[in-house]
Amino acid sequence: MTHVMILTRHPEEYRRQLESADLPSLEKLEVAKTPSAALVLGDDYEVVFGEPALIREILSSLPRLRWVQSIWAGVEPLLDPSLRRDYALTNVRGVFGGLMSEFVFGYLLLHERRMLLRFQAQQEGRWDNSITGTLQGRTIGLLGVGSIGTALASTARHFGMNVRGYTRSSETCRDVDLYFHGSGLADFASGLDYLVNVLPDTAKTRCIVDASLLDRLPAHAVFINVGRGVAVDELALIEALRKGRLAMAVLDVFEQEPLPPEHVFWHTPNLYMTFHTSAPSVPADISRLFIENYHRYTGGQPLLHCVDFERGY
Amino acid sequence: MTHVMILTRHPEEYRRQLESADLPSLEKLEVAKTPSAALVLGDDYEVVFGEPALIREILSSLPRLRWVQSIWAGVEPLLDPSLRRDYALTNVRGVFGGLMSEFVFGYLLLHERRMLLRFQAQQEGRWDNSITGTLQGRTIGLLGVGSIGTALASTARHFGMNVRGYTRSSETCRDVDLYFHGSGLADFASGLDYLVNVLPDTAKTRCIVDASLLDRLPAHAVFINVGRGVAVDELALIEALRKGRLAMAVLDVFEQEPLPPEHVFWHTPNLYMTFHTSAPSVPADISRLFIENYHRYTGGQPLLHCVDFERGY
Repeated sequence: MTHVMILTRHPEEYRRQLESADLPSLEKLEVAKTPSAALVLGDDYEVVFGEPALIREILSSLPRLRWVQSIWAGVEPLLDPSLRRDYALTNVRGVFGGLMSEFVFGYLLLHERRMLLRFQAQQEGRWDNSITGTLQGRTIGLLGVGSIGTALASTARHFGMNVRGYTRSSETCRDVDLYFHGSGLADFASGLDYLVNVLPDTAKTRCIVDASLLDRLPAHAVFINVGRGVAVDELALIEALRKGRLAMAVLDVFEQEPLPPEHVFWHTPNLYMTFHTSAPSVPADISRLFIENYHRYTGGQPLLHCVDFERGY
Repeated sequence: MTHVMILTRHPEEYRRQLESADLPSLEKLEVAKTPSAALVLGDDYEVVFGEPALIREILSSLPRLRWVQSIWAGVEPLLDPSLRRDYALTNVRGVFGGLMSEFVFGYLLLHERRMLLRFQAQQEGRWDNSITGTLQGRTIGLLGVGSIGTALASTARHFGMNVRGYTRSSETCRDVDLYFHGSGLADFASGLDYLVNVLPDTAKTRCIVDASLLDRLPAHAVFINVGRGVAVDELALIEALRKGRLAMAVLDVFEQEPLPPEHVFWHTPNLYMTFHTSAPSVPADISRLFIENYHRYTGGQPLLHCVDFERGY
């Protein structure tokens, strides 16, 4: 008989969805919004479903723990080598691709179609019918071609773009025209119209978007970061934007979140921030994924979306 | 031997493309930027390639005229019943779909992803991570499903949306889930999240977007007009926006262009204007279409994209 805990700041909808799923051999289902509330619920849980940063706090207090399902893609708080790794850690994949595509191409279109300039013209009473740009024929480079990168490649193809992909080794997405790996990073970036980072946070991806990479982009290029904040050398990016060597940057993620009030990003020209909203977790999607994995767990089948603690994703 | 005139305010690129195409049996190729400059060039042209409003002015001065290729989709200036119709009129189709898709979905994403609100939050130093909307699962209604509507339906499908189409009779686009015709207009509009007009200007489409149609839309709906300005009852639209019965309208086309300075649209809340820039004619695309039709013309084959003077498109 299985004991499950939901640990997240907003557990109500997850609880409803799990309760209505009539899960087999479920003996106990409790919810907590904080680690301290979780500890009061006892220590006999073998399954925890929730936010990695909160779960980290109770990790050492759960002797029966066998499986943690994160409600997010990012599970960094649980990857610290000092923490136990004697349980299965699964994250969320495959549900963010569509939302990320909306975000990335929405901002590329904001830029190409000059939406803010038209808006300004309207406020000034000017009939501004200057010609707009287009995505057609432009080249996008994807740093990372996992499930999210694959979704972005598909949308890029839909809009008639050329697609380059930079990955560790895989070349499985058919919407990528050209693949690059390892030391091919500079060639990958050369002449890109748009650079999008969707890489997870690992030792190899820290500061991958640095001055030398940004130098390979033409001045009309746009950079979008929906991966992790630590993938970007913040000072190099600010420098490139200030000197007009990059047309626009859209940052959804940051080294420190929320961004401190004194951070230069708040006032960097042509930099747009979206405060980690690019792909909101939709509880119904996440619960569906948990329920699928729960059936696998109780049925003794391999879990979906297992995180490799060493690799980091 | 064929005499061709290019008549448009910006003829240079068209001339270059036609000259480099090595057109068969071409005896004379002249360009003019205005009707009066065109008249100076003589009256022995059988083919004119250019802007309908300019061509209209010299229509009665070309006794040998056999074919007019418009560089635009809209050919209203040439449809006036008082004008001659003893020549083949062809317009541009099939090249605007991608650009229109960029425009329509760019603005829908601007709205759903709260881009202007995030921009404002950034300017105010606020970490605004309120949840965004999504296109997934939303329902879009297309007034008109010709080549542009078909492209919009394909993009809507790509983003996981439901698609309704309103047409005179055709039901040929497989990305449309539900078709409506004739008196089914109110049912078509009921409960739509997004309404997009791409209809050409005909007697039947004037003011098709009126108060009763707008009344069928929920208050969170967005209306986008990339068809013709006369399709909209402007006062009804202003009223709906002012009373909050419509979340947003994006207008690319207007009854009168440029919009007069005193027009209420300049200051209507939640109304965004884009000054007839949604699908700029890309000369290379238009020239390719002319060249294809020119080969058909000299080869005695039927021309592509012939306009029916009576039907109006």
